[in-house]
Amino acid sequence: MIFDVLTLFPEMIQNHLQFSILKRAVDSGVIDVRTVNPRDFTLDKHKKVDDTPYGGGAGMVLMPQPYVDAYESVEKIENSITIMLSPQGEPLKEGLVKELANYDQIVMLCGHYEGFDERIREIIKPREISIGDFVLTGGELPALCVIDAVSRKIEGTLGKIESANDDSFADGLLEYPQYTKPREYRGLRVPDVLLNGNHKEINEFRQEQRIKRTKERRPDLMC
Amino acid sequence: MIFDVLTLFPEMIQNHLQFSILKRAVDSGVIDVRTVNPRDFTLDKHKKVDDTPYGGGAGMVLMPQPYVDAYESVEKIENSITIMLSPQGEPLKEGLVKELANYDQIVMLCGHYEGFDERIREIIKPREISIGDFVLTGGELPALCVIDAVSRKIEGTLGKIESANDDSFADGLLEYPQYTKPREYRGLRVPDVLLNGNHKEINEFRQEQRIKRTKERRPDLMC
Repeated sequence: MIFDVLTLFPEMIQNHLQFSILKRAVDSGVIDVRTVNPRDFTLDKHKKVDDTPYGGGAGMVLMPQPYVDAYESVEKIENSITIMLSPQGEPLKEGLVKELANYDQIVMLCGHYEGFDERIREIIKPREISIGDFVLTGGELPALCVIDAVSRKIEGTLGKIESANDDSFADGLLEYPQYTKPREYRGLRVPDVLLNGNHKEINEFRQEQRIKRTKERRPDLMC
Repeated sequence: MIFDVLTLFPEMIQNHLQFSILKRAVDSGVIDVRTVNPRDFTLDKHKKVDDTPYGGGAGMVLMPQPYVDAYESVEKIENSITIMLSPQGEPLKEGLVKELANYDQIVMLCGHYEGFDERIREIIKPREISIGDFVLTGGELPALCVIDAVSRKIEGTLGKIESANDDSFADGLLEYPQYTKPREYRGLRVPDVLLNGNHKEINEFRQEQRIKRTKERRPDLMC
């Protein structure tokens, strides 16, 4: 999977890939993350990429020329999708993550400051995706969330020791409680059922816990 | 505002603070972000912080001792809240961001791998927060989202030139389309109403666009 990230802060993306499972995915060639900086494409002599909004208002708006030219410089392969990270987009959920994992290339447009000139949307026509109903300084953290979540669905990213199958939302429910050593810690004991080796009982206990937890915490997921 | 982040990957947090508005907020003392690594607190001679789950299953579970000891090492000031980043938590939304911005200290527990031993929840009793219904490798990206979103609400983070008031969700609606220079780009023109200097008409146009956009894209926000 190729991720091409258009961002004014390429180091925000690259720095994060130096750790943990994403580092391994990059090192093993399962994913390839490339960055393009629209600032390198501006035709403005002061390297400007943003300007004040027409009609007034606070903040700086990203100008169309550097973004559109940067976007057009990215070589698109077959089976490619272009997404824009924006609080106005479709909420990212596990189903959408799986859908994105079926592409071979994801081109991502990260905004910053007050947002994109509307004509960037009109020309590039990206699928707009939001990671949640809150406002961030830029699209870089959301882009990293997409890279992380999508990479976990690609064969070769998670080792045998890890697994995505029991995770929260894998079948629409939250995850069951997990326990590891020691058996007793500050007077709190691991539930007996997890120690008896009876896999049928363990599975039943875990499924009950998943349903109970989802009902308590996220009844909206049960509809 | 003090952010204390418990994480096995402190550099993931610190690297991100070297850029843009968060860097400025740190440099000017508006926020202070500190990291604590539970690995420095493990009593295991091999510095282990995780082990296999009781009852079987894939993945490694974070052991209670290093996390609880690391948490107890953090000095809590008055008006402090402790949150755990977890896909099982309450969804982060703009209202919750504002609530968090009223604290003077936010202590954050970042999981990694398969998640926390349940007793960490039982002992620390954190408020659990999720940034969305998708699974990530760790709580570090969600913690950075919290730091970014909350910092934007604190006086001194955004300069005069920026503003949080017109952002998406500021009053429950998505943002209006933005335009900046040039007036015409690839045949697409800035709407005339934004150029005529009539602020009443501009405000009406923008409000109409916000309602239209929210109805089209996120009718759930209109309820």
